Amino acid sequence: MNAEEDLKFLKPGERIDDLSRSGFRIIQNPNYFRFATDAVILSEFAKVGSKDKILDMGTGSGIIPLLVFARRRPAHITGIELSAQMADMAERSVALNGLESHIEILNRDIREAGNDFGHDVFDVVTCNPPYFKVTNGMQNEKESVAMARHEIFCTLEDVIKNAFKVLKTKGRLYMIHRPGRLGEIFSLMREYKLSPSKLRSIHSYASSLAELVLIEAKKCVKCELEILQGLVIYNEDRTYTDEMIRIYDN
Amino acid sequence: MNAEEDLKFLKPGERIDDLSRSGFRIIQNPNYFRFATDAVILSEFAKVGSKDKILDMGTGSGIIPLLVFARRRPAHITGIELSAQMADMAERSVALNGLESHIEILNRDIREAGNDFGHDVFDVVTCNPPYFKVTNGMQNEKESVAMARHEIFCTLEDVIKNAFKVLKTKGRLYMIHRPGRLGEIFSLMREYKLSPSKLRSIHSYASSLAELVLIEAKKCVKCELEILQGLVIYNEDRTYTDEMIRIYDN
Repeated sequence: MNAEEDLKFLKPGERIDDLSRSGFRIIQNPNYFRFATDAVILSEFAKVGSKDKILDMGTGSGIIPLLVFARRRPAHITGIELSAQMADMAERSVALNGLESHIEILNRDIREAGNDFGHDVFDVVTCNPPYFKVTNGMQNEKESVAMARHEIFCTLEDVIKNAFKVLKTKGRLYMIHRPGRLGEIFSLMREYKLSPSKLRSIHSYASSLAELVLIEAKKCVKCELEILQGLVIYNEDRTYTDEMIRIYDN
Repeated sequence: MNAEEDLKFLKPGERIDDLSRSGFRIIQNPNYFRFATDAVILSEFAKVGSKDKILDMGTGSGIIPLLVFARRRPAHITGIELSAQMADMAERSVALNGLESHIEILNRDIREAGNDFGHDVFDVVTCNPPYFKVTNGMQNEKESVAMARHEIFCTLEDVIKNAFKVLKTKGRLYMIHRPGRLGEIFSLMREYKLSPSKLRSIHSYASSLAELVLIEAKKCVKCELEILQGLVIYNEDRTYTDEMIRIYDN
């Protein structure tokens, strides 16, 4: 596709970034919330099979559906996004890559997922939720940034409750969050019959505290939690670790 | 002290092992449950100050009081142990090292700790509890081994409930347990107003799943959980990692 054809997919202020994976590209607007390493790591962590139907909750630019599809070619991915503007942009990214028959983007509310899709529908749910509770410190942020970072329209409980509803029995939820919320996540999962099955912490450096945690939980099955060795992003000389190079190159 | 004097401290079947720390030694009976790496790692993980009063719940051979005292010289350590035989042996280990004014061993029940010691008494509680629920597979074990491994006389809830009672506000509980129990531990801590503040997984090898987790929790304070990079015991060539060498040599 040449640059002139690309322009058909873009609205003012937007640009196309290369995902270095299957030749896929993504539309982003530097004024909105752009995808970060978090989404790349979560999409790598999610165990997805070729027959799986997947729901990505709060898909933003559609980064997780694109990365998961590029790597795993699952049966189908639905991404839901509350911001009409972001959903529209994500939908155009799907079209830009010609993936309309594999990935569907819907302008929907996570809190309504159980009603919108019904129960026991998806094999996998992925979610990179807002990390922070609503605070006073966020007035200076643009709306789309505030929505992605703060639990304005969607709490942790909304995510876990609706993931539980739409997942099939034994279906898997993959989340990334801050370590400070882990106790709450475990409590809510227990309440909604999701059993934490894998935990992996993410550290900028081998010697630093975890900034994030990856969690896998399964619906209505009892499992022993497995804890993986933490993922380290940077070597001491600030280059990527071998594992991060592998994650980005895959 | 010469070998003849040592004999005064020993009962049939017992032997004296060197702790390689402050010249301290410990009495063990190979027929009972002997201390393992778990106790060494837990005593290293516990943050203990020189003015702290400490309770070690289920002290067994007294290994944790001895290691913690060797390293931190806190004000006082009490070790409680339900097995009269083990408590007697631990008491003789304390005497063997001439530490009677620093470490007290009592033949008491964890489930009665709140009644025995009263509330808001200790700065730190340490516990290396039984890891397994009561099952049918344990009939072949000797009683002292079964008690140390299985929750026959003491459940996770007994530990957490009584740790909460005897700890001062802001006091710290240090536990080691299996990853599979982490969800339950977090739930019980939430119930008993202990806030998990540090988590560290323990892996035999860098590439292996965690066998154990270390947890620090604080009484009646809100804190953000910090997750440390996992502790790896062995290099790939089965020698100890640098960190384990440091832990054993300290």
